[in-house]
Amino acid sequence: MPQLSSKADLMPASPIRKLVPYADKAKQRGTKVYHLNIGQPDIVSPEAALDAYRNLPFDVIAYTHSEGTPEYRKALSDYYKGRGYDVAPNNIIVTNGGSEALLFTFGVIANPDDEIIIPEPYYANYNSFACQSEVKIVPIKSSIESNFALPPIESFEEKITDKTRAILICHPGNPTGYLYSQEELNKLKDLVLKHDLYLISDEVYAEYIYGEEEHHSVLGFDELKNNVIVIDSESKRFSMCGARLGAMISRNEEMMSKAMKFAQARLSPVLTSQYAATKAHENVGSYFEDSRAEYVSRRDILISELNKIPGVVCPNPKGAFYCMVELPVDDAEKFAIWLLNDFDLNGETIMVAPGNGFYSNPESGKKQVRIAYVLKKEDLIRSVEILKVALEQYYAKTLI
Amino acid sequence: MPQLSSKADLMPASPIRKLVPYADKAKQRGTKVYHLNIGQPDIVSPEAALDAYRNLPFDVIAYTHSEGTPEYRKALSDYYKGRGYDVAPNNIIVTNGGSEALLFTFGVIANPDDEIIIPEPYYANYNSFACQSEVKIVPIKSSIESNFALPPIESFEEKITDKTRAILICHPGNPTGYLYSQEELNKLKDLVLKHDLYLISDEVYAEYIYGEEEHHSVLGFDELKNNVIVIDSESKRFSMCGARLGAMISRNEEMMSKAMKFAQARLSPVLTSQYAATKAHENVGSYFEDSRAEYVSRRDILISELNKIPGVVCPNPKGAFYCMVELPVDDAEKFAIWLLNDFDLNGETIMVAPGNGFYSNPESGKKQVRIAYVLKKEDLIRSVEILKVALEQYYAKTLI
Repeated sequence: MPQLSSKADLMPASPIRKLVPYADKAKQRGTKVYHLNIGQPDIVSPEAALDAYRNLPFDVIAYTHSEGTPEYRKALSDYYKGRGYDVAPNNIIVTNGGSEALLFTFGVIANPDDEIIIPEPYYANYNSFACQSEVKIVPIKSSIESNFALPPIESFEEKITDKTRAILICHPGNPTGYLYSQEELNKLKDLVLKHDLYLISDEVYAEYIYGEEEHHSVLGFDELKNNVIVIDSESKRFSMCGARLGAMISRNEEMMSKAMKFAQARLSPVLTSQYAATKAHENVGSYFEDSRAEYVSRRDILISELNKIPGVVCPNPKGAFYCMVELPVDDAEKFAIWLLNDFDLNGETIMVAPGNGFYSNPESGKKQVRIAYVLKKEDLIRSVEILKVALEQYYAKTLI
Repeated sequence: MPQLSSKADLMPASPIRKLVPYADKAKQRGTKVYHLNIGQPDIVSPEAALDAYRNLPFDVIAYTHSEGTPEYRKALSDYYKGRGYDVAPNNIIVTNGGSEALLFTFGVIANPDDEIIIPEPYYANYNSFACQSEVKIVPIKSSIESNFALPPIESFEEKITDKTRAILICHPGNPTGYLYSQEELNKLKDLVLKHDLYLISDEVYAEYIYGEEEHHSVLGFDELKNNVIVIDSESKRFSMCGARLGAMISRNEEMMSKAMKFAQARLSPVLTSQYAATKAHENVGSYFEDSRAEYVSRRDILISELNKIPGVVCPNPKGAFYCMVELPVDDAEKFAIWLLNDFDLNGETIMVAPGNGFYSNPESGKKQVRIAYVLKKEDLIRSVEILKVALEQYYAKTLI
């Protein structure tokens, strides 16, 4: 057969890919699997969005402008204005999910072998988009002991070279749930200004912040007009992951006019998704408050139950709907496979995402797993019970 | 501001981008503009697809599998089986439009600086995807005199180097409407086998073939199991451009397993589009016959009217819904701008796509324009009248 590209080999597989066949087999055996491994919320999409599909006013499902429909860009602009950020419709390029916004961003700002600094652990697919764009990710480790706070600014400066193009943060963080404080963001602001870098902020979970602290978007930095690129998405905001609707947001006009060439190449984002999300924004009601209340109660029960298990460490996430959990095991991936392949508690088990998939070096985070709290509270409670018994059995097994 | 990538500069702009401000100004002056410049059909999407949106059975618009839903992959597999091609669901990766299928394909098979041979004129966005993937397009010119037939196979062999990874055809062709014969495809088959290349066939217009000849998909070549990649899309088949639903189809299992890593990185294609297109496939009725009948009557009137204008040359396209037209002007782009900026016939004008945008060298095809017959017959007749008068005036102006 004809040869493949090096990229085809280098592209990382999804961190849970290895586990999928085991999960399938478990299900075939009749075992019920609680999916704590993916960020697919069970929260119902907004009624206004569902109604929009039911009443689509189109008889031709046609291309939209490559940059998105005027109506959706206005709705998203209004959403940001409502949060106090000066985002005009022409600061927005609508994309096929946040994924495409990342791909456009990497393509526009970085040449092959250029570097982007990212605090780790980080969203695993950043590796894939970097590989696809031949960009090098330079990780800076944040640690579970310090709750995954921003690493000291000196450790960023040490990594900056003439190849560095950007710092990328996920805010609040997937997989950590960490929320950067205004003070931490100020430090990043000074740093990117000093070195003339882009600050890419993946804020797709911005609506899901729990507790006293607020989410501060980097769009609030007027001085960073030319430096800031925000990755937006409706996937988590409106529980519309399958709409594939995201956006690249920036006030850097020259950069955005170049990004438009990437957008034109693929013609158009999805008409129906833009229409439905526009209606959701226009009729938002108490959707965010309701969803937040649900997530916060899930988080509270999950984290408190997890920390009751001997040897388990789980910082309290301030946002998003994930937590990174350190388990009393040597190799969390092996344990995750064992959970699916060799264990059940009265016919039930859990699937978790091995933590090392969220680090650039698979030797890091080997004791950690990512748990998404996207299931109902009773399922989360049951999942932690399963985890507790599983850890006991797994520990006993190692003593044999 | 921080620097941009070289790609950001090199990415080609859309061939009509330069014309858009002139079209906008013409409309502001109250001039009616007939859009012959884009491939957005006015044909209504299938009632079954529209009904599917109206009756979505989901209350969470969730991710689907990265490779697409089982139901849609089965529907597309059944569609190909119905046409006599052995395509299994697992030979299909569902994508965000044919665009993403091209991007995955280039990424999987070609390293930076590798070469893909394409008969020109070709779909302008191939340049963009090649640029994005840092792949080099090696064009082989087909000519309007020979009706844009496949160039002699020797001219392909001359261009094959150790960097050549694939030959890419658009079948039937955008922008030419050319339909490759079984004999031509056989030659390509022998060539790619001899040199162990991929044969990428963009068949998104396969349903729209007019006249006696049939469309032969390269999927019919069992010997090319490992070589053939077909680019599929619902955009034109079901007039659902805005659904952003395409597919990459191949029986090369190793290559497809690598392509899956690109698909996993962006998580999922669009749930609602897959659902609607599944219903359209399951209830296809006479949709293709009806649409074909409409297109063929449009083509017939358009081509015969165009060829009545002195100095205009337009081969009869056998498929798709475009034609490349040679005009008696020196610079068709200038003429296209003049049509929008300086001309109207009783308050009406036309917008066409300058032909040089479909060639790798913008000095080629300078007398040509691409016309899409996606408008109603009476609008096409009126458009040709406008073109005729415009050419007379433009010619007279050059004599002054």
